[in-house]
Amino acid sequence: MTMRIALDAMGGDYAPQSVLKGAKIALERNPHLHFLLFGPAKTLKPLLARSKKLAQASEIIDCESGIPADMKPSTALRQGRGTSMWQAIDAVHKGQAQAVVSAGNTGALMVLARFILKMLPGVDRPAIASFFPTMRGESVMLDLGANLECSGENLAQFAVMGQVFAKTVLGFVKPTIGLLNVGSEDMKGSQSIRDAATTLKESSFQDQFYGFVEGNNIAEGIVDVIVADGFAGNIALKASEGAAKMISTFTRQAFKNSIWAKLGYLLARRTLSKLHKRMDPRRYNGAVLLGVNGTVVKSHGRADALGFATAIGVAVDMVKYDYQHEVCHDINRLKESTTSQEFLPQAL
Amino acid sequence: MTMRIALDAMGGDYAPQSVLKGAKIALERNPHLHFLLFGPAKTLKPLLARSKKLAQASEIIDCESGIPADMKPSTALRQGRGTSMWQAIDAVHKGQAQAVVSAGNTGALMVLARFILKMLPGVDRPAIASFFPTMRGESVMLDLGANLECSGENLAQFAVMGQVFAKTVLGFVKPTIGLLNVGSEDMKGSQSIRDAATTLKESSFQDQFYGFVEGNNIAEGIVDVIVADGFAGNIALKASEGAAKMISTFTRQAFKNSIWAKLGYLLARRTLSKLHKRMDPRRYNGAVLLGVNGTVVKSHGRADALGFATAIGVAVDMVKYDYQHEVCHDINRLKESTTSQEFLPQAL
Repeated sequence: MTMRIALDAMGGDYAPQSVLKGAKIALERNPHLHFLLFGPAKTLKPLLARSKKLAQASEIIDCESGIPADMKPSTALRQGRGTSMWQAIDAVHKGQAQAVVSAGNTGALMVLARFILKMLPGVDRPAIASFFPTMRGESVMLDLGANLECSGENLAQFAVMGQVFAKTVLGFVKPTIGLLNVGSEDMKGSQSIRDAATTLKESSFQDQFYGFVEGNNIAEGIVDVIVADGFAGNIALKASEGAAKMISTFTRQAFKNSIWAKLGYLLARRTLSKLHKRMDPRRYNGAVLLGVNGTVVKSHGRADALGFATAIGVAVDMVKYDYQHEVCHDINRLKESTTSQEFLPQAL
Repeated sequence: MTMRIALDAMGGDYAPQSVLKGAKIALERNPHLHFLLFGPAKTLKPLLARSKKLAQASEIIDCESGIPADMKPSTALRQGRGTSMWQAIDAVHKGQAQAVVSAGNTGALMVLARFILKMLPGVDRPAIASFFPTMRGESVMLDLGANLECSGENLAQFAVMGQVFAKTVLGFVKPTIGLLNVGSEDMKGSQSIRDAATTLKESSFQDQFYGFVEGNNIAEGIVDVIVADGFAGNIALKASEGAAKMISTFTRQAFKNSIWAKLGYLLARRTLSKLHKRMDPRRYNGAVLLGVNGTVVKSHGRADALGFATAIGVAVDMVKYDYQHEVCHDINRLKESTTSQEFLPQAL
């Protein structure tokens, strides 16, 4: 069955080329895709003409160019109606596409998606989620920056959305959940984190709830889903990326230090390049905006075609495994189980 | 001139052996040290007898054993008076020692140090600081967990304390300061972070203030001092450690993958072991509790003798370069410059 994906063809540092090339790669991986390409027709038409296959699987929807990377979200909300990002999101709202992918301005995407698509019933705040490699495989983390401060209820909802995302995109059966904290003891952390722990412990997700995890546990992969407010989550993810890059760089430099090391590198090249591929950030491109009423995937602004294709792949998985429906179901489960728990003491 | 250091001989997973062996290494590095060893004499005496040199440079102060690693700080405060940790801190308060080093319960150390030593004049809250390797050398980060929430004024004071620490222990002349945030633009982050930025910009530290830094900038080493509240700082540091460990492990594993890679490893072994040494966490052991009226160094609980010797070395540097005096001076500079700035508009 054909799956229709709206692409903001003008978002990202290398758009529209990276978007079209990414779409082409995604199409090779999944021939059932149909793309709605949002952007100025005069720009997109000649580019699309270069690939017959992609042209056959795509239609251009003529509109203004993208939202500038440095535009304030509030300005985008006031002035962005005609842009490729707005129109691409709106295509999901109108049911013309089943998901939207953009590598444009993150803040604008968040605000526009929430404004155009509205929230899913039962979800109070959207959260940005992403997945990344760990010692034990892959994990999901959220929120990565949509909310600087969160209540316990917000965090519990993020946990539920995150575990559905882990099921959908990583294929986990019953993902484990951890709350990011500065210690593993019950008394640690802010009130909202402790509230979230109480809610999850008392909910029907209790057997998936691991408890508190610390910063170092993220890369250890001791849980499948790490839940944090947007400030801590953003800093944890970026700090991890920075540290990983530092060690990789140091290792590469070390191999240039002597003739023996250089020779050693040549011999180990194949296995090191496998490692490099395994950790390739392009394999982990595609943050999603969870909680809004529609599938919205954010590609990294500097993503190349391969990275953008990964982001499309995330959108495809979310549609294929019906993320939106699953999350509504599980959010209801959270509400029901916590409500019944609340009434329990009185009933007894 | 002799420098007198109080050691909590009973704190840490490998105490008292790691403490005594660490003291021995520190003494070899710095023969002017004199140690006050706090702990049960019957335990410490036979251990100390093993090294004549260390015995000559040490005295045992008989007291109860250490504070258990899992004891609540509030319990330590009520019941800990006779313990090695309490007595070691008290030696600094009484002027019997110039600094105290403990590998014991962090929460208890913080609470006891604050209770016994009190705060430095002009400093509102203590902060935990540490230093670590970056792409450009070494940086300092604080707070690493003493305060979950901080005002702008707290963060500005941490910035001042952190830059004195970077001068003292890393030898920087005019350390640059960055505030950890989720973006570099002025409007990003919480009110307290933006307040701290305003305070620092208007203070006499303005030429040291770089602005906001993001998680990935930590390992990049773009500033010498990274300032955060204790929640974000703790998570950033631990997430970085976790990611660095993951990449190192993956690289080691990669070298075991094939006979060629193994041979490559043998050839590159020397240069890789240099890298390993450079990143050795034992070289970066020694978090300090800044802002209290006395030099307090916290060794990692799992530190071995070499790690504990590093922690003693940090204490030695802080005493040698008169951290406490310097920080009082610079905190005054902060207060004066921000106060005068406050009055400036009215005077004009």
